[in-house]
Amino acid sequence: MNVTRHITLPKGFRSAGVACGMKPSGSEDLAIVAADRDASVAIVTTQNQIVGAPILWCRQMFPRRYGKARAIVINAGNANVCTGKVGLHDAQTMATETAKCLGSRPDKILVASTGIIGRPLPMTRVRRGIAAAAESLSTRNDQVALRAIMTTDTRAKSAIVKTQIGRKKVTIAGIVKGAGMVAPSLATMIGVLTTDAAISPPALKKALFTAVGPTFNAITIDSDTSTSDMVAILASGAAANKVIFTGSPGHRKLTSAVTEVCAKLARAVVADGEGATKLIEVIVRGARSNREAEIAAKSVANSPLFKCAIHGHDPNWGRIAAALGKSAAKVVVEKLAIRIGSIVVFKCGGATKFSTAAVGRHLSGTMVKILCNLGLGSGRFTALTCDLSKEYIEINAHYHT
Amino acid sequence: MNVTRHITLPKGFRSAGVACGMKPSGSEDLAIVAADRDASVAIVTTQNQIVGAPILWCRQMFPRRYGKARAIVINAGNANVCTGKVGLHDAQTMATETAKCLGSRPDKILVASTGIIGRPLPMTRVRRGIAAAAESLSTRNDQVALRAIMTTDTRAKSAIVKTQIGRKKVTIAGIVKGAGMVAPSLATMIGVLTTDAAISPPALKKALFTAVGPTFNAITIDSDTSTSDMVAILASGAAANKVIFTGSPGHRKLTSAVTEVCAKLARAVVADGEGATKLIEVIVRGARSNREAEIAAKSVANSPLFKCAIHGHDPNWGRIAAALGKSAAKVVVEKLAIRIGSIVVFKCGGATKFSTAAVGRHLSGTMVKILCNLGLGSGRFTALTCDLSKEYIEINAHYHT
Repeated sequence: MNVTRHITLPKGFRSAGVACGMKPSGSEDLAIVAADRDASVAIVTTQNQIVGAPILWCRQMFPRRYGKARAIVINAGNANVCTGKVGLHDAQTMATETAKCLGSRPDKILVASTGIIGRPLPMTRVRRGIAAAAESLSTRNDQVALRAIMTTDTRAKSAIVKTQIGRKKVTIAGIVKGAGMVAPSLATMIGVLTTDAAISPPALKKALFTAVGPTFNAITIDSDTSTSDMVAILASGAAANKVIFTGSPGHRKLTSAVTEVCAKLARAVVADGEGATKLIEVIVRGARSNREAEIAAKSVANSPLFKCAIHGHDPNWGRIAAALGKSAAKVVVEKLAIRIGSIVVFKCGGATKFSTAAVGRHLSGTMVKILCNLGLGSGRFTALTCDLSKEYIEINAHYHT
Repeated sequence: MNVTRHITLPKGFRSAGVACGMKPSGSEDLAIVAADRDASVAIVTTQNQIVGAPILWCRQMFPRRYGKARAIVINAGNANVCTGKVGLHDAQTMATETAKCLGSRPDKILVASTGIIGRPLPMTRVRRGIAAAAESLSTRNDQVALRAIMTTDTRAKSAIVKTQIGRKKVTIAGIVKGAGMVAPSLATMIGVLTTDAAISPPALKKALFTAVGPTFNAITIDSDTSTSDMVAILASGAAANKVIFTGSPGHRKLTSAVTEVCAKLARAVVADGEGATKLIEVIVRGARSNREAEIAAKSVANSPLFKCAIHGHDPNWGRIAAALGKSAAKVVVEKLAIRIGSIVVFKCGGATKFSTAAVGRHLSGTMVKILCNLGLGSGRFTALTCDLSKEYIEINAHYHT
């Protein structure tokens, strides 16, 4: 049997996905990714001020956002957000039950939930699901586990990168869910990465935080930041490389591999954005600083008018200019140049005599590239987004609470 | 003949609207609102850093945003934005031609343009239009003048408020266009107000700036701020009241009447938002400050997920909470209460046992009220927005450059 593996490709991990009845469709809705023994862990959580009980649990267990963990348990269909004390208790129970099944301790278990806000979890089902999932942990369930964390996602999103640390081969893998409510500062996006690298928890945190900036924090689908976002990475150490510490030779290499996995997953999230028909890369160069480049790029990437124009294959550089101009980043129209694909459509304060047909050809593809050179400095940032379609409205007008 | 009057109801004004061939539909696209003699004037212009040539012209003529003016000439169909030196010259020509026809000076003429960005104005037509409009100035053309400034608007939007200053009856009237690209800090929204009050230019500016805050700057359709926004008010003095100065008894009264006109127009703009089926009032109370209340209210009002939910009649308070939480305003989930219509749906950190049917009835109306009490202070703000529908996408994916 041909089994697609990803999250358990790094040595020392097993996964499982089961259906316990939280998704109306009846498909898988609870997953566990477990290390064979305690692993280094690092997490990034949402910047929303209102957060789900699972986020509170994880932050409480890992106040410094790193430590040692055994497993992560994730459910989809119910986000366990705004559920009060019951919700907190339920998140804790998810950890306790998972720990019990794995012969570990609750404080070694990460919990993540995604789905509807404001309803208590059906804990009888969740308990049963955890037991069943723990029972079936293996290296053959990666796709099922991935399916179990999906909500409005239309595609299973995973990534694998291999590298070498010293003389040891190291693998980094990741899975992610998230198709709406995806914005700067994460998204309803739950990402789980595993690696068999041996690395200290603080070094792992540093790698993850570095990786998240230009990847998960550079994407936006609808400017809405969720209450449940989390990216977690577990490092088993099973590759038996010399343990990586912050500053040790392997750290930069591992960081870049983790960034590569995050970049692939982030890109996949946007490409699978709700109702998306195109992946749009908004590259800003020549800003006064990288921070201003980010602000400018995200202002374009979040502009509904811009996203609609791209959806309609409209070379509407006016909306790009307007979105740059409304941002808090310094923009001077005379210095601004805008390219769509490889074609310069705007410079020196006015439109160029570009070929509408050529720009149209670029816009009719599934990958659109917008390059804005502000001509003011060396700041740069690339934001990723998708177009805004009727399908987005369809999905979000009828995804009921 | 029954003629609808508004903008010339205040004494001392005439208006005209003509078709000079800028709109593909062939309908009216150039308007003049003129005072019989020089009037006090005040203007508010867009906060976008990239602005149209007409905005540059007006700012140059009125660097302090007030002064004496004779008329405003407005065209729709072409925004004269990003048109370089040619554009600046064209805006100036519009002023010069209008001045010539009225026997005034170019520096007494305001210019406003709305429509497509990046194409030079067809000046032969514009010149002809100005001459024809100036020729036909009267008090019987208000509706035609209003039609001439509309773009994707589906309704003609005007307002009239009468008040008394001393013993004199004073009228304030206004017209507005603007249906998309409407955001905090104005919109592609051009508003023209007239009044027959006698008022000094600085006092008029103060009245207008005060009026704009809770009205035009409190509305958002799609979070996009245009390059061409302007609100101008002309005061003829024909009511012959004792001239109002800042701080004089009539100033507050006039300010409140101007605010009332702006509020009616702003409300009408949102109700006519592109693709809108509902007007949504997002009231935030209990914020730490008015500024934080504004940030929180606009975060909800600009959330695509929230707007889609309302479009689908979904009592999705989770998205309201998430939008509040992602904002820069302080929010504490345990102190937050959310009402939809008059029904409390969320408090004490969790959903109440509300009647879905009752909330559904409120949401199925055309006026939706969302009240968020942050429970942290006395800051308050009300933002107005509309729902997000497929029609918005339809309009904006195909409004070509």
